[in-house]
Amino acid sequence: MPHRAPGSPGNSRKNHLSGTPIRYYRPTGGADIRRLIDEGFQAFNAGRLSEACRIFSEKMLDPANNTTIGLTIAGAMTPAGLGGCVIEMMDRGLVDFVIATGANFYHDLHYALNFTLRRGSPFVNDVELYEDGIIRIYDVLFPATVLLETDAYIRDFITRSRLNEAVATSEFHYRLGLDLLERYPGCEEHSVVARAARAGVPLYTSSPGDSSIGMNIAYHELMNDSKFMIDPNKDVNEVCAMVLAGQQNGCVILGGGSPKNFYLQAQPTLWEVYGIPKGGNDYFIQITTDQVVWGGLSGATPAEAVSWGKINPGVLPDTVVAYCDSTIAFPLFCEYAVGSPNGRRPRKELVHQRDRLVADLTREAKAARDKKQVETKA
Amino acid sequence: MPHRAPGSPGNSRKNHLSGTPIRYYRPTGGADIRRLIDEGFQAFNAGRLSEACRIFSEKMLDPANNTTIGLTIAGAMTPAGLGGCVIEMMDRGLVDFVIATGANFYHDLHYALNFTLRRGSPFVNDVELYEDGIIRIYDVLFPATVLLETDAYIRDFITRSRLNEAVATSEFHYRLGLDLLERYPGCEEHSVVARAARAGVPLYTSSPGDSSIGMNIAYHELMNDSKFMIDPNKDVNEVCAMVLAGQQNGCVILGGGSPKNFYLQAQPTLWEVYGIPKGGNDYFIQITTDQVVWGGLSGATPAEAVSWGKINPGVLPDTVVAYCDSTIAFPLFCEYAVGSPNGRRPRKELVHQRDRLVADLTREAKAARDKKQVETKA
Amino acid sequence: MPHRAPGSPGNSRKNHLSGTPIRYYRPTGGADIRRLIDEGFQAFNAGRLSEACRIFSEKMLDPANNTTIGLTIAGAMTPAGLGGCVIEMMDRGLVDFVIATGANFYHDLHYALNFTLRRGSPFVNDVELYEDGIIRIYDVLFPATVLLETDAYIRDFITRSRLNEAVATSEFHYRLGLDLLERYPGCEEHSVVARAARAGVPLYTSSPGDSSIGMNIAYHELMNDSKFMIDPNKDVNEVCAMVLAGQQNGCVILGGGSPKNFYLQAQPTLWEVYGIPKGGNDYFIQITTDQVVWGGLSGATPAEAVSWGKINPGVLPDTVVAYCDSTIAFPLFCEYAVGSPNGRRPRKELVHQRDRLVADLTREAKAARDKKQVETKA
Amino acid sequence: MPHRAPGSPGNSRKNHLSGTPIRYYRPTGGADIRRLIDEGFQAFNAGRLSEACRIFSEKMLDPANNTTIGLTIAGAMTPAGLGGCVIEMMDRGLVDFVIATGANFYHDLHYALNFTLRRGSPFVNDVELYEDGIIRIYDVLFPATVLLETDAYIRDFITRSRLNEAVATSEFHYRLGLDLLERYPGCEEHSVVARAARAGVPLYTSSPGDSSIGMNIAYHELMNDSKFMIDPNKDVNEVCAMVLAGQQNGCVILGGGSPKNFYLQAQPTLWEVYGIPKGGNDYFIQITTDQVVWGGLSGATPAEAVSWGKINPGVLPDTVVAYCDSTIAFPLFCEYAVGSPNGRRPRKELVHQRDRLVADLTREAKAARDKKQVETKA
Repeated sequence: MPHRAPGSPGNSRKNHLSGTPIRYYRPTGGADIRRLIDEGFQAFNAGRLSEACRIFSEKMLDPANNTTIGLTIAGAMTPAGLGGCVIEMMDRGLVDFVIATGANFYHDLHYALNFTLRRGSPFVNDVELYEDGIIRIYDVLFPATVLLETDAYIRDFITRSRLNEAVATSEFHYRLGLDLLERYPGCEEHSVVARAARAGVPLYTSSPGDSSIGMNIAYHELMNDSKFMIDPNKDVNEVCAMVLAGQQNGCVILGGGSPKNFYLQAQPTLWEVYGIPKGGNDYFIQITTDQVVWGGLSGATPAEAVSWGKINPGVLPDTVVAYCDSTIAFPLFCEYAVGSPNGRRPRKELVHQRDRLVADLTREAKAARDKKQVETKA
Repeated sequence: MPHRAPGSPGNSRKNHLSGTPIRYYRPTGGADIRRLIDEGFQAFNAGRLSEACRIFSEKMLDPANNTTIGLTIAGAMTPAGLGGCVIEMMDRGLVDFVIATGANFYHDLHYALNFTLRRGSPFVNDVELYEDGIIRIYDVLFPATVLLETDAYIRDFITRSRLNEAVATSEFHYRLGLDLLERYPGCEEHSVVARAARAGVPLYTSSPGDSSIGMNIAYHELMNDSKFMIDPNKDVNEVCAMVLAGQQNGCVILGGGSPKNFYLQAQPTLWEVYGIPKGGNDYFIQITTDQVVWGGLSGATPAEAVSWGKINPGVLPDTVVAYCDSTIAFPLFCEYAVGSPNGRRPRKELVHQRDRLVADLTREAKAARDKKQVETKA
Repeated sequence: MPHRAPGSPGNSRKNHLSGTPIRYYRPTGGADIRRLIDEGFQAFNAGRLSEACRIFSEKMLDPANNTTIGLTIAGAMTPAGLGGCVIEMMDRGLVDFVIATGANFYHDLHYALNFTLRRGSPFVNDVELYEDGIIRIYDVLFPATVLLETDAYIRDFITRSRLNEAVATSEFHYRLGLDLLERYPGCEEHSVVARAARAGVPLYTSSPGDSSIGMNIAYHELMNDSKFMIDPNKDVNEVCAMVLAGQQNGCVILGGGSPKNFYLQAQPTLWEVYGIPKGGNDYFIQITTDQVVWGGLSGATPAEAVSWGKINPGVLPDTVVAYCDSTIAFPLFCEYAVGSPNGRRPRKELVHQRDRLVADLTREAKAARDKKQVETKA
Repeated sequence: MPHRAPGSPGNSRKNHLSGTPIRYYRPTGGADIRRLIDEGFQAFNAGRLSEACRIFSEKMLDPANNTTIGLTIAGAMTPAGLGGCVIEMMDRGLVDFVIATGANFYHDLHYALNFTLRRGSPFVNDVELYEDGIIRIYDVLFPATVLLETDAYIRDFITRSRLNEAVATSEFHYRLGLDLLERYPGCEEHSVVARAARAGVPLYTSSPGDSSIGMNIAYHELMNDSKFMIDPNKDVNEVCAMVLAGQQNGCVILGGGSPKNFYLQAQPTLWEVYGIPKGGNDYFIQITTDQVVWGGLSGATPAEAVSWGKINPGVLPDTVVAYCDSTIAFPLFCEYAVGSPNGRRPRKELVHQRDRLVADLTREAKAARDKKQVETKA
């Protein structure tokens, strides 16, 4: 078989693209679902998911706690249509910032640009797909041209944006969202990136080179001698600053992976690197299928995080891991939250607070350094 | 419990640090082990691991193929003592470049700096550990001071290095390795970072902000107004350039996660972004415990990668996934490779070829762009 | 610590039994839940679960197909409160027979006898529980006296029943259910065993010695010289006979394990042992967290079952495996089925058809043997 | 596609049976392997496997402890060629009795009868296999005629044996083994069932109807009006009696499932049903890939078993679970044991002690009952 690019027109023997289009489902807070979670989910992972719903809705969302809530996303959630849940949560002020793999933001753009991803099957012949120019993400199928046209939009945006310096991923995604809002009015109903810009929710990627977005930024540097790049330092410091500013801190972790680690390292950065005794998270909710016994961070328990200062030693009852595919558990979780008495909060709109919060961090960190130097001399 | 930094001296009620020190075990190619893998590992994942050993030793290492081999590492492999396997593989020319989570390089520094990590148990009281200033990575235990002193070394190195610009992670790790070799002679026997510098193996991190190394670089920018940062674009382009230059390409994936994705996106970057019809990988070996049915990239099969152009459609027989904890399977795999007739190759020392290879990539990409523009006009 | 029986009164340091009582939740067919499954569960395991719901409700329950439906249960579903789903499904004629581990029927008796199991946590000190006489099933907690009193009821029933011969587990469970209905009127609302007797649904256990029920039957033989025993042959032949009689055949497999195998071996028994060309299952639904790559039967796919003649080669589109904890997926599945237009069927009441069906099997098997002997001679 | 029995001659389009024959690999105690396990397996599951090897070899096999050791096997271990490990362990007196799924003993007979199972791939077309009459167990392939001829042998043996009563599975397997030794001299080198008969190791099946052996016994009852059946009560009482007689007790659990439960219920049977305060296991080793968080018994930890009295509360340090495919971990484990200083023990030959031990159990149980009746009256 000759080397060539998939995506070329092929003579498709089967109509792989006949499945129902995937749409961003929006949770509405159904009472039946809340009853099932309260009364029917009693033990094992159903019990854990029920606990997670109650900790989130009754404690993390309690106005008195004013919890700063980070959502981290690993796994292909936007291709699976979960973006609608994220939109609803951001719009209602239920999550304050998001850390995701680049792929989740990249594939979100397909929805913004009105391309169609379709329900399919994981049991298909990938050599046929390759020959027919069809891309597969587990059981989600779409033409390779969707990638090429999304890439073209990204490169066009980068050129138009005149970005020519090192920026945080939050800044890049914010500008990208504004561009989408301007060019594709109404797309904030079916794009996380666009809605985040509208709702003031900063979006971070812990592995900025590691997605088609990163690939296109790298193209721009190589081919156009651009000085535009992602500065991971800015991301690290912004997330630290937001966590430092939280009255209480909590997270909802979907999957695990690099986004989980990136969120959880904020507190260790504060004490270990900046010498600021902030303490760890007050709440920790994870929905994952990874297992502690495999030894990876994705599967690491809240207990292990205590030894690192990532989670406050006294709050283990307010931490919970539900082992379940996020595509099942996260919509249920969002339905419960949306339907709860605390189902809407004032939005923090942290994207506009970043400079102020980083300045606060800098001040505290320098004070800690000065204090330590005085102590060392004394 | 008051907020404070763990790592403070505590009144340890138990001696959590009484376990055997973890050392970098070096595979020697034992004949008994090779016999077990050939004759005793016949079916199920034992069969897969046996296949992986043979594909690697007989095909990927076949001098006629001159395969460019990338090793990707997720999961805390250096804390578990697997660094010795990586050192042996680099030294013998059996891997040409490495992509790992930052944590693997960070914790490798403890060995270089002669700190001791110890065998422990995952069933310990983390609140006690927190109070005693002991850090836990699953069942690996060490004092929090190991973190603080390793951080101090990193910050000191950054200052001494006079790095004040945006660089690739390969460049940063190379310079770090040279510093270790100079300051801690002999440490290349027990440090992956040091040995990589000696052996000319580039080390990449796909999530540069996401580890204690990234945290300390971020500190330097915030506190010292440094211009030193990681440029993810350079990493993307260097890896693409090395893959493009390979006569044949193959990978050994430990775990999955962001390092896996970063490696596998090189071929899609070439065709999708740069318009260069390189084709996909010729060989693909993964050792993981993640599962395809959870839908994440870590568990995605070689077949799925075909639809993306990451793996050549004709080579599925030369792809294999063995489902096993890397701490068990990777030492067995290395023993087999080291003991094989192809157990040593000339080293490619790609760290010194990076500029040349990126220039080649730039040339080919520009030629592809020009050709496309001509076609579009025609 | 001296050897003694747990369950002795202890000086409980903590009130482990303060959790909410676990009750048998009954699905009601909520419209919100059906909408979520139809519109929100689009890909990955949510997509699979959605498919499973539609295959079951639209095809397996289609009156035209008159599918004989077996439900198999592994994992501690009755302790987790899932018995209410099973009761609802049996009552509505949506499952025709059940194969479960003995533990599921044993722990169901606690509900019949009005003992209380409670929600707890998996993170408790088991040595404390042991000393306090508390039994733990993952996160379900109850006093050891519940075991002792349930055992006493079983032994008392066995004595009263005057059973003194070898019987099928279906017969034993049927008589047990009748006894419960008589002694504890109304218990069919909170006991699978009692409701099955009322609804005429035969209950089988593939590993009859392997549960507290089996232990107490064994006691009776050893201590009272009883001739009462379970005859596994009868179970094998009854299940074969019911499958043989099905117009169409289908199953819902929760978990996997020995109950899955016991159900699926019916078709191979027919062709391989009895020489009757019945063909395999027409529908196959499994909810499990076990994985095909571990090689066990619990994780084996419908495809693999084709090679054994367990599933018809043409029906793979009507087979689906959803990877999810049954405590989450099964209530959702039942809600969908109960709320569907086919949410009630005439009950087959197979417990009363067993003799007739086994006679039919015997006749066909003998005819097949005679035909084969004629062919062999010819 | 018409209903028919697979196994009919087909026009095979591919030679699915070209793989290497699977043979029973025999561990020899290689020094390289022991060094790897001692020095290279330091953390995570490698660390656990290393611990398991040392607990087994140094404590369970310590002559002073005279531990009665049960081996339980779930998952298709004999098809994968692991029978050689079991043979070696039985021959050296390192396991005293075995509980396995019926399938493991059934497929062992193929080796005894000199049929060939072959290495294959899990990625094959099962409809093709079905049409070609080839049976697949994950990646193990063999003609359906192997089933039919093995079944014929079993039915022939049953007829010749003149068995016409209810017996324990240990008795049935023992007689089967003797028949194999007589008819196929030398087959004890490649048959667990034959070697067990020679070595006096009782073999139990917890789910006697649930395998092709059970199917053929059921055939005999239905078609020939035989009174031969398995009496699960005898199995329960024999295993209880052997456990009761142990100076110390320990187990090696491969997989989990019904065999695990059957072994572990012995101690609860003693205290809960028979009123004998024996205490729980002193040692517990499990090799599995199932996970505690899924709530099933296969994944249940040693800690949970403490609350049931299955494991002694004081011995948790002598319990270990290594999460790994048994096809990889069990050969490594056996190599370590065989090469250890305690690598051979006098065989207990419990198959010949069963009557005596059950008589002892009966005596103790009646004494306990009498004592309790006296106490109740007093």
